[in-house]
Amino acid sequence: MSDFNVIGKNVEKKDGIPKVTGKALFARDISFEGMLYAKILRSKVAHAILKNIDTSKAEKLPGVVCVLTSKDIPGKNRVGIIIKDEPVLVEDKIRRFGDALAVVAAETEEIAEEALDLIEVDYQELPVITTIDEALKEGSLKIHGDTNILENKSLIKGDVDEAFKKCDVIVEKTYKTNYFAHMFIEPEAGVAKYENGILTIWASTQNPHFDRGEVARMLGLSQSKVRVVQAVTGGGFGGKLDISTQCFVGLVTYHIKRPVKLVYTREESMEVSSKRHPHVMKYKTGADKNGKILAMEAEFLQDSGAYASYGPAVVTRGMVHATGPYEIPNIRIKTTMVYTNNPMAGAFRGFGVPQVSIAHEQQMDLLAEKLNMSPYDIRIKNALRVGSYTSTMQKLEGSVGIVETLEKAKEKAEEVIFNNNKDLECIKKRGVGIGCMWYGIGNTGLPNPASAFLEVHKDCSVTVLAGCADIGQGSNTVMCQIVSETLGLDYEDVNIVSADTGSTPDGGATSASRQTYISGNACKKAAEMAKETLLKIAEELLNVDKSEIILKNKKAYSNKDENNSITIQKILNNCAAKGIMVLGCGYFNPDTTSLDAETMQGIPFATYAFATHFIEVEVNTYTGEIKVLKIVAAHDVGKAINRRMVEGQIEGGCLMGMGLGILEDLKVENAKMKTLNFSNYLIYTAKDTPEIYPIIVESEEKTGPFGAKGVGEPALIPVAPAILNAVYNATGVRFTEVPLTLEKVVEKLNY
Amino acid sequence: MSDFNVIGKNVEKKDGIPKVTGKALFARDISFEGMLYAKILRSKVAHAILKNIDTSKAEKLPGVVCVLTSKDIPGKNRVGIIIKDEPVLVEDKIRRFGDALAVVAAETEEIAEEALDLIEVDYQELPVITTIDEALKEGSLKIHGDTNILENKSLIKGDVDEAFKKCDVIVEKTYKTNYFAHMFIEPEAGVAKYENGILTIWASTQNPHFDRGEVARMLGLSQSKVRVVQAVTGGGFGGKLDISTQCFVGLVTYHIKRPVKLVYTREESMEVSSKRHPHVMKYKTGADKNGKILAMEAEFLQDSGAYASYGPAVVTRGMVHATGPYEIPNIRIKTTMVYTNNPMAGAFRGFGVPQVSIAHEQQMDLLAEKLNMSPYDIRIKNALRVGSYTSTMQKLEGSVGIVETLEKAKEKAEEVIFNNNKDLECIKKRGVGIGCMWYGIGNTGLPNPASAFLEVHKDCSVTVLAGCADIGQGSNTVMCQIVSETLGLDYEDVNIVSADTGSTPDGGATSASRQTYISGNACKKAAEMAKETLLKIAEELLNVDKSEIILKNKKAYSNKDENNSITIQKILNNCAAKGIMVLGCGYFNPDTTSLDAETMQGIPFATYAFATHFIEVEVNTYTGEIKVLKIVAAHDVGKAINRRMVEGQIEGGCLMGMGLGILEDLKVENAKMKTLNFSNYLIYTAKDTPEIYPIIVESEEKTGPFGAKGVGEPALIPVAPAILNAVYNATGVRFTEVPLTLEKVVEKLNY
Repeated sequence: MSDFNVIGKNVEKKDGIPKVTGKALFARDISFEGMLYAKILRSKVAHAILKNIDTSKAEKLPGVVCVLTSKDIPGKNRVGIIIKDEPVLVEDKIRRFGDALAVVAAETEEIAEEALDLIEVDYQELPVITTIDEALKEGSLKIHGDTNILENKSLIKGDVDEAFKKCDVIVEKTYKTNYFAHMFIEPEAGVAKYENGILTIWASTQNPHFDRGEVARMLGLSQSKVRVVQAVTGGGFGGKLDISTQCFVGLVTYHIKRPVKLVYTREESMEVSSKRHPHVMKYKTGADKNGKILAMEAEFLQDSGAYASYGPAVVTRGMVHATGPYEIPNIRIKTTMVYTNNPMAGAFRGFGVPQVSIAHEQQMDLLAEKLNMSPYDIRIKNALRVGSYTSTMQKLEGSVGIVETLEKAKEKAEEVIFNNNKDLECIKKRGVGIGCMWYGIGNTGLPNPASAFLEVHKDCSVTVLAGCADIGQGSNTVMCQIVSETLGLDYEDVNIVSADTGSTPDGGATSASRQTYISGNACKKAAEMAKETLLKIAEELLNVDKSEIILKNKKAYSNKDENNSITIQKILNNCAAKGIMVLGCGYFNPDTTSLDAETMQGIPFATYAFATHFIEVEVNTYTGEIKVLKIVAAHDVGKAINRRMVEGQIEGGCLMGMGLGILEDLKVENAKMKTLNFSNYLIYTAKDTPEIYPIIVESEEKTGPFGAKGVGEPALIPVAPAILNAVYNATGVRFTEVPLTLEKVVEKLNY
Repeated sequence: MSDFNVIGKNVEKKDGIPKVTGKALFARDISFEGMLYAKILRSKVAHAILKNIDTSKAEKLPGVVCVLTSKDIPGKNRVGIIIKDEPVLVEDKIRRFGDALAVVAAETEEIAEEALDLIEVDYQELPVITTIDEALKEGSLKIHGDTNILENKSLIKGDVDEAFKKCDVIVEKTYKTNYFAHMFIEPEAGVAKYENGILTIWASTQNPHFDRGEVARMLGLSQSKVRVVQAVTGGGFGGKLDISTQCFVGLVTYHIKRPVKLVYTREESMEVSSKRHPHVMKYKTGADKNGKILAMEAEFLQDSGAYASYGPAVVTRGMVHATGPYEIPNIRIKTTMVYTNNPMAGAFRGFGVPQVSIAHEQQMDLLAEKLNMSPYDIRIKNALRVGSYTSTMQKLEGSVGIVETLEKAKEKAEEVIFNNNKDLECIKKRGVGIGCMWYGIGNTGLPNPASAFLEVHKDCSVTVLAGCADIGQGSNTVMCQIVSETLGLDYEDVNIVSADTGSTPDGGATSASRQTYISGNACKKAAEMAKETLLKIAEELLNVDKSEIILKNKKAYSNKDENNSITIQKILNNCAAKGIMVLGCGYFNPDTTSLDAETMQGIPFATYAFATHFIEVEVNTYTGEIKVLKIVAAHDVGKAINRRMVEGQIEGGCLMGMGLGILEDLKVENAKMKTLNFSNYLIYTAKDTPEIYPIIVESEEKTGPFGAKGVGEPALIPVAPAILNAVYNATGVRFTEVPLTLEKVVEKLNY
């Protein structure tokens, strides 16, 4: 495992230079001759019957080329990742602030903007449902169909009632989380163009193949006639999984056959993109006197807002992970997710797990305190191990590094945190907290494939075609490393074309920390097909069985005699002389299973990533300010394909997790979002970075490419719970709601 | 065979609408912000030692961005399809008029043009070699290395000397052909751009993957870092197989990192693009008294001009095909191809076969006359049949339709030509001639692969990625037909991306009428891999063995019970639910063999196309004008994938063949081409089209996709010889040189 050439190395990021030199083209940088500009008329009420839209005045404004409404949609006017419940353009019912009512396309952006004011909308307002309680109330107005319940699920393992009877200690608490916004630095943008019978859309997206399907369906076109190209994407974090500008620019160009661009304003992006689901989580956890957890019970209430988006996936993932990375024999969890007229919630780095981790990690500390154990010991005692059964009775067979992350994090914390002399003003208090997490990699509950093609050129260079969208996380780099290692060719000579539905096969969404594992495996399979061709020739030339042959450093050699070698260039020359092409094609899909409908028992994920954070905070008890001083972050990623990028993910995740724990305060009043920009929705920036000590733990996952799992979301998850535990450690006050805003902290510390 | 859905149908050409509506983007239509314009300084002498190039004055001209010479080439300064003997920019020796000496890149095309005049070139002229004789003369100056002989080959079958002794009749004659120009309607053009570490070149080309290799080699880059995209290409006919603008724009952008465009003027294109090789062909053919040909001997002298280009391939093909489509047991052919300082000759629709057909078809008529047989009967008697041995002792096993083309063409000619009452002025004479041809499809003498990837999308549509360049001949349409038929899906839903080295695997050159056969087979194989996936699911769903299952009309059904069926959409839904992706990847290479070095015996081609043309001409004996009145053109194409496109190829080939026979008169004086534009190099246009009766003969080729062979070049080949025979039939005067210009005809008829 250690003898890799490229895997685990800090090779140059494929998109590094274009980005730091400003050459990378984001969707808003793409322009074409004769291009129009689009703007969207959006609802200024949260719930209403749409009676009429009169576009005639707007159409007459000089420079306006068209004003399109739902009537202009030739195909299906419904989009949605899991449930197709969201209209592209409202035809009958407005369900939230910001619902799209009409698209204007004009010669300039200013004219398009001006035209919006000339559109007359006739609607009849309905009562607005802003809370889960109201949504569930008998006789409440229904937002979709005949119930406001989007999901209602139970997870049942063992006999929780019996088990609680045997517990020596039980802790119960209710935790709450708010909305959070992704605040990707680039608002949604898309450009469409029609050429040679193909509608091409360049968009800021995490999900180009899904987008293609949605646009094709909306326009009644076949998927091969719609091409979605992921433009360089300035972050997504789950917020660019739902479709946004793509349908609007597609619709305009479909009708007008001219290129068109649509760039959301920050406020528009904020209002209509999905948010992290607010959760109410009622927890009850019991252990015996030795600290062994015997039972847990939980009830989750979640607000999906006006549309389903990824809601059902958040429900499932949150429930499966509700235990934290601990083996608990008896579990009962009930979740209800509802529709309201609130902002739409959806995918956001972690899919519900950051929420439940805030609960389960505080439960651990509460139990430890009652048992007079250390937070560390209770975690070690209950941590999942090889052979453990998870919440869904999945037996863990392979890569289970939670104990190792605990041990390594503690060791590092002892070095960099605990030996720290504290000489503080009396109003400042410091404390240390632990946060652990596990995170399923490779969804198996739904089909989850990705694919790749590749060609080895005659000069030892390679072109890879993979659907996988690199949104900055570095998947292009990882895929090239995997291909390079598999073929024994130079990383610099491997080029990837990614996330262009016109030329790359489906890679699925860049979500759920799946691409290294899923697309990585697909690229590896494609490379192995090409490798097989090379080995067949090498076998003849080296006169040894191909099972003995190693491809490395652009050479093929026998593993029994390294001197019996030949350059891969010579193998390729031999192929070329025989007219043999060195091609690869592969896809990977972890075996699709389905969970038991009643109990959710089964295998929801192919494997799991694990992590432990030790975080030191300083609380200013006077101002309420919480400062994160140090984070030790140990992550079991299976295998780090690129160590620097894994560390980068951990560092980024830490800042986003700090925002979730402390700073990011999204305000919704009467279903209307009030914090629509960086001026009132604050996020941590590079200047706020504490000392972060990333630790990479590599518990090899046999089904992963070179042993890799994933790290994108795990990096964020343990941060907020560790902060909450650290604040308690510092102040003796336990907070059950995030974020820990100044007001909240001051109020609670002083009363 | 008759039961196809898409094969053999006149489906809409994929590039039809964009072309007729003017939307198609040729390379000169492509522009980028900040784009420079390049111009090439070219030699105004034919042979010289280059001593110095002083670019300093040119560089100082405002608006000039760079002036590059051979010193600025970081990699190898040599290009060439078969032999790398041509400098991108001359570093030491000028070998022809038009050799490239320097590239200027400037802010405007005008400035670039102006700068050319400011470059000072110091050279020492050398004697100019303008004839084959001079080139071969002992002690002659050598253009490359130590000999002016580029190729010197013999083809020997049987014992020709003994065989001639047994002949009752022998005919001997020497035939000559001139240079001919392709006159593709779009001159060479290329645009380069550097982005994200990738140098992309859009070019008018028949050979994008070759171009990529040449540019990469010249710049010392790996092939994966250079992307060549075939822009919509306005014809090629072999003239865009050699590299042209690609290296120049690549070199500028490599250094300057700004986009650059280079469009050749018509005169520049004419001067530097390859021309048809002038041939001198000395023929001797003998037959017994029954008309059975027993022996032929031939000696060919060919002028390659200053560089090799496709010369060696023209030598081989010409020799193999020198017999015409007849079985001749004893053969001796000797060919010498030389370098001169004349314009470079190279690939041109037919690769030497149009030249030899002018000889062998007149030899047939001469023999017939001596034997008092009809031209038709002698052809039927000697025509190749299944089981015949070709000139290289290749036994013909499968598809040999020459007799059928003779029969069908005669039948049609009797209907439309021979029953024609002729009531002419006395100065006008009419006659009918026959031209036959055979043409090897699928070179096996060299590796000859092409490849394709494809993905079947979830909605029954398909994207095909194939390297194959469509230069107007319709390969994109053909590939989509083949994929559509193989998968039983709708042609309209199959989209192809072609000839983009950044996203399509190598398809080889669009030359030698190979793409339907070679890339067609590659696409079929890729489709069959995807089909296999569909069949595996269909097998389960229909509960029959997959060998029984037919995919057609978007359905899968049992060949034993058509009612036991399921839609392909349902199969795809089933795949999607299981995470199964329907991908295809395939390449095809006809078994590479090599001919015997001494005798050229062996298997040079996978299969052969055949054709017979009956042509009626009217000769104005006073003005010398030859008017082609009617052409009956029967072509054995194996299987017409698209009948209308095959007919289009035949019609286009007839006009180009008429040009070769009669009109196109390229003048070279002292190694300098004098006819540089449409004003003095005339070609036939649509208005000159005679009555053409295309007849499609389908002698199924088992190794071809759905039985197909090829038709691109065959369409041209029989035209000139049939005209020459028809002129003899009309006037009693035999011409042995083409073209039959007015002067030549008047002179010969009147003396």
